Amino acid sequence: MNLEHLKKLIREVPDFPKPGILFYDITTLLKDPASLKTVIDALRDRYKGAGVAQVLGVEARGFIFAPALAYALGAGFVPVRKPKKLPAKAIREEYQLEYGTDALEIHEDAVQKGQRVLIVDDLLATGGTAAATARLVEKLGGVVAGFGFVVELDFLKGREKLAGYEVHSLLHYDK
Amino acid sequence: MNLEHLKKLIREVPDFPKPGILFYDITTLLKDPASLKTVIDALRDRYKGAGVAQVLGVEARGFIFAPALAYALGAGFVPVRKPKKLPAKAIREEYQLEYGTDALEIHEDAVQKGQRVLIVDDLLATGGTAAATARLVEKLGGVVAGFGFVVELDFLKGREKLAGYEVHSLLHYDK
Repeated sequence: MNLEHLKKLIREVPDFPKPGILFYDITTLLKDPASLKTVIDALRDRYKGAGVAQVLGVEARGFIFAPALAYALGAGFVPVRKPKKLPAKAIREEYQLEYGTDALEIHEDAVQKGQRVLIVDDLLATGGTAAATARLVEKLGGVVAGFGFVVELDFLKGREKLAGYEVHSLLHYDK
Repeated sequence: MNLEHLKKLIREVPDFPKPGILFYDITTLLKDPASLKTVIDALRDRYKGAGVAQVLGVEARGFIFAPALAYALGAGFVPVRKPKKLPAKAIREEYQLEYGTDALEIHEDAVQKGQRVLIVDDLLATGGTAAATARLVEKLGGVVAGFGFVVELDFLKGREKLAGYEVHSLLHYDK
């Protein structure tokens, strides 16, 4: 399905969050009921036969799509959060930022051994958080069924960090 | 509809985020597909005749329910975020914390004048963020159609801060 028309609803904000960065703002798409439905339905149709038990979303913008997709697929939702936000026993993975490192956590009991998990986020940029999220799933014995993104910034080559996984993005940008 | 059985899936974590606080952890409910569906469907059934144009969720845990409910209702989703996270022109409201203040922002073009907006969050505690969120909607000329919560901590009396609004919570706790 061609979803290119959705790009008209994505606002391009220059110099955010810092000079030289062109930010693709999806809030203008999300507030349009038909477009929100199109995005969720497109991801649902892609993954409905994939045996997905859990849809996993990364704080904060990943929370926007993953639970809605879990609902549409009849799966559960699992949050991956910044350190110390999860209340029960959790495991942690670090990942590289442009300067320094950051970390993500998942509850130890969030994924069962052998469960198929779909990782969903709004944006595939450099792929650092996505790859760290896959490591969290695999440490718990889960199987990464794939990655679903709304927007992929092709020029940042994040897909290369996810080599060997099924990766699907609804919209692509070259710059 | 009686949803009390869902409480068995909510994990009670003592002394989180600090000593003396009993934290109601909904992640154990969210990972159960049938319970996630029950929660979203219960909120959808409550508000389906209410003319809701936008469902608004507050970062970060409000993002879990609001977009899924927007999808189920055929409405749009509007995020309310911590300061400086939104990329375009935004307005701000401050609210009181136990010690000091915090603030929330919404994009200026997120809500149209006269639009009916449902505010959704996982938890009604003291009501401070919920009341600030209503002020943001009303500053933009929107109409608060109601507040939908998954869990309400009755003993914190957050409902009193929302006097005059329609407030609905799926689950109540007395302590």
